[in-house]
Amino acid sequence: MPIFQSLLDIDFYKFTMGQVVFKRYPDVPVKYTFTNRTRRVRLAEVIDENELRRELDHVRTLRFRNEELDYLRGITAYKPNLFCEDYLQFLKGLQLPAYHLEQADGSYNIEFSGAWAEAIYWETIALSIVNELYYRALMSRLSEFERDVVYATGKIRLAEKIKVLRSHPDIVFSDFGTRRRFSREWQDYVIRVLAAEVPQQLLGTSNVALARQYGLLPIGTFAHEMFMVMSGIMHGSEEEIRASHNKVLQDWWEEYGWSLSIALSDNYGSDFFFRDMTPEQARQWKGLRHDSGDPIEFGEKAIAFYRRCGVDPQEKLIVFSDGLDVETMVKIADHFAGRIKVAFGWGTNLTNDLGFDALSLVIKVTEANGHGTVKLGDNLAKALGTPQDIEYFKRVFGYTRTTYQELRY
Amino acid sequence: MPIFQSLLDIDFYKFTMGQVVFKRYPDVPVKYTFTNRTRRVRLAEVIDENELRRELDHVRTLRFRNEELDYLRGITAYKPNLFCEDYLQFLKGLQLPAYHLEQADGSYNIEFSGAWAEAIYWETIALSIVNELYYRALMSRLSEFERDVVYATGKIRLAEKIKVLRSHPDIVFSDFGTRRRFSREWQDYVIRVLAAEVPQQLLGTSNVALARQYGLLPIGTFAHEMFMVMSGIMHGSEEEIRASHNKVLQDWWEEYGWSLSIALSDNYGSDFFFRDMTPEQARQWKGLRHDSGDPIEFGEKAIAFYRRCGVDPQEKLIVFSDGLDVETMVKIADHFAGRIKVAFGWGTNLTNDLGFDALSLVIKVTEANGHGTVKLGDNLAKALGTPQDIEYFKRVFGYTRTTYQELRY
Repeated sequence: MPIFQSLLDIDFYKFTMGQVVFKRYPDVPVKYTFTNRTRRVRLAEVIDENELRRELDHVRTLRFRNEELDYLRGITAYKPNLFCEDYLQFLKGLQLPAYHLEQADGSYNIEFSGAWAEAIYWETIALSIVNELYYRALMSRLSEFERDVVYATGKIRLAEKIKVLRSHPDIVFSDFGTRRRFSREWQDYVIRVLAAEVPQQLLGTSNVALARQYGLLPIGTFAHEMFMVMSGIMHGSEEEIRASHNKVLQDWWEEYGWSLSIALSDNYGSDFFFRDMTPEQARQWKGLRHDSGDPIEFGEKAIAFYRRCGVDPQEKLIVFSDGLDVETMVKIADHFAGRIKVAFGWGTNLTNDLGFDALSLVIKVTEANGHGTVKLGDNLAKALGTPQDIEYFKRVFGYTRTTYQELRY
Repeated sequence: MPIFQSLLDIDFYKFTMGQVVFKRYPDVPVKYTFTNRTRRVRLAEVIDENELRRELDHVRTLRFRNEELDYLRGITAYKPNLFCEDYLQFLKGLQLPAYHLEQADGSYNIEFSGAWAEAIYWETIALSIVNELYYRALMSRLSEFERDVVYATGKIRLAEKIKVLRSHPDIVFSDFGTRRRFSREWQDYVIRVLAAEVPQQLLGTSNVALARQYGLLPIGTFAHEMFMVMSGIMHGSEEEIRASHNKVLQDWWEEYGWSLSIALSDNYGSDFFFRDMTPEQARQWKGLRHDSGDPIEFGEKAIAFYRRCGVDPQEKLIVFSDGLDVETMVKIADHFAGRIKVAFGWGTNLTNDLGFDALSLVIKVTEANGHGTVKLGDNLAKALGTPQDIEYFKRVFGYTRTTYQELRY
């Protein structure tokens, strides 16, 4: 049975971004590129190319079913009519665009090119496929009992997480683990358990299919690609490139208003972000998402930023989503208790903690509108772009940070 | 579905003893009594009496099926025609005798009275039932996920055991865990895993149904009840009572010869045993079973005993079966390596190590032929009998040991 059974088995932010893209920039040509940041693992020696193609091909045969679109249409938790009919009709006709796949140097080059409005949906789907095929291959080398022990290890570790969460009832979190999940089945299990065991602390899940299945809130706003593609769309003078950052925030607010106003804050580094976000935006937006660099330092900067803007930080929310585990969440929650609202988007360590090392796989937009795209972040280990483009964007955005912290996940 | 699906779901020694009893002492009136040595657990507050009765009643509806008797008939690993046709025909007609059950002081009094030839089969069956109902009740108090975690814990601990066993390939063992198993299903799982993962080290299982199912050797010789009932049969002068001990060895040798000649060595303490076993028996018998007291001390005494009898200890086998875990097995195996053959009968810690405390439940013969019965052992914490009978038997058997070591299982 193919891994993907539904196009809803995808992160919610693909739809919230997807609608903005559909309405405003549908035809911008983009290219997404797969990267395995875990260099020591030679994926092509583990994952069979034919199997990988079969899974990707199968996704291209999937279409949104009416009842799936009905579900999207019916989501009212953020605002009424979150998704417009035009967009839902567009989804109804959508086939994911062709992919390009080749082996190179023991790994796979995978690229997804096309109109932004269509290519945008591949990201978490393709990542989930590569992850699941990789762990399936590792599992196939084990005995039946050893495979049992893998799941047993996952359950014990999940139980340990739940124990810590229960002893910190102030911690609230969402599952952000679709893209890095050990398997679809395992993510399903984890969500089912969390929904039963810590219902007051599980805010929801980024996985739309699981949100639907378990009656949870689908969670997500937007990703780096919004800034990255926008820099390609507005690729003119340095000033225009810099302006592309705030254009993303303006578009987003125009589309969703307060309901989904969590701003990803590190694309060109948080120093630039806090210079770029206006006091009015600071007052309007619900909060920020932290995705790289030291979380405590970031939170302190955010608090100071809000105070400078005359905003009470206690009214604002930071969603932390960078390489979390329970210890990190406890540390962050304790540090900011009573000072600013905190929530967590918990990924790899939540859905892929069964004893195997996690892979750090990403699919990021690398070209937009004919230009190379760049993410800098607050940790240069997560930077994306050609070396020349990175240097250029550092200059454009006044980026001075030199932090380089090896990734845990 | 009732716990017991087959009368073969029982320890093999019930049949090897059962045949001796059937042929020689079928009508001796005996009484077996259930005891929970784990006093802090009030079983009647955990296990529903009706459920317990239902399970026991169901066992009384079971009969040996033809294919089950065919299996017993076909066992040739010990000697041809191990079980005679008369005995197999007796089994075919067997219904387990009535039980007596009542609540008292938060626990259950359970007794099985009748002719020895019929009452003998209740022991491991009734123990397995009480154990499984107890753990079912504990499990029913947990959430679905917590129950998953119990099994996960069991698997992780089994994996740890297998890891240690593999690093000590000299350790060979049998499953003796039927009576204390967490559940029938779990014992089945453990045996299936061990048969696949450490086939060279798993000698077999005491559980006849599982031996049959997985093509393993059924393992077992005889239990304390042989000595205990024989003391009732020969209950005359002190000399006659003392002679009842060797009579068991003589009967056993007459019935099975070398093939099943592992002598349980602690019923009246190993000091008496080594005085009572003759040099000829020492030469003839395959070896000894240790079931109480310090295992290293016992092994050293056995080696000295064999040397005194002019027997090379390296040709003899000790089966250790007292409260084992991997650490104890490693210690014993390392200590006696190259000096005497060693095997292990691994019970509670093998089939009931999922995070719950194990119960120390026993069913022992308490009356035989109208007399109270006594087991002394090398650890008085495991002694059985009324205080008066124990004192009397100590005197009769010249028992001087004062060891009292709290039981782990």
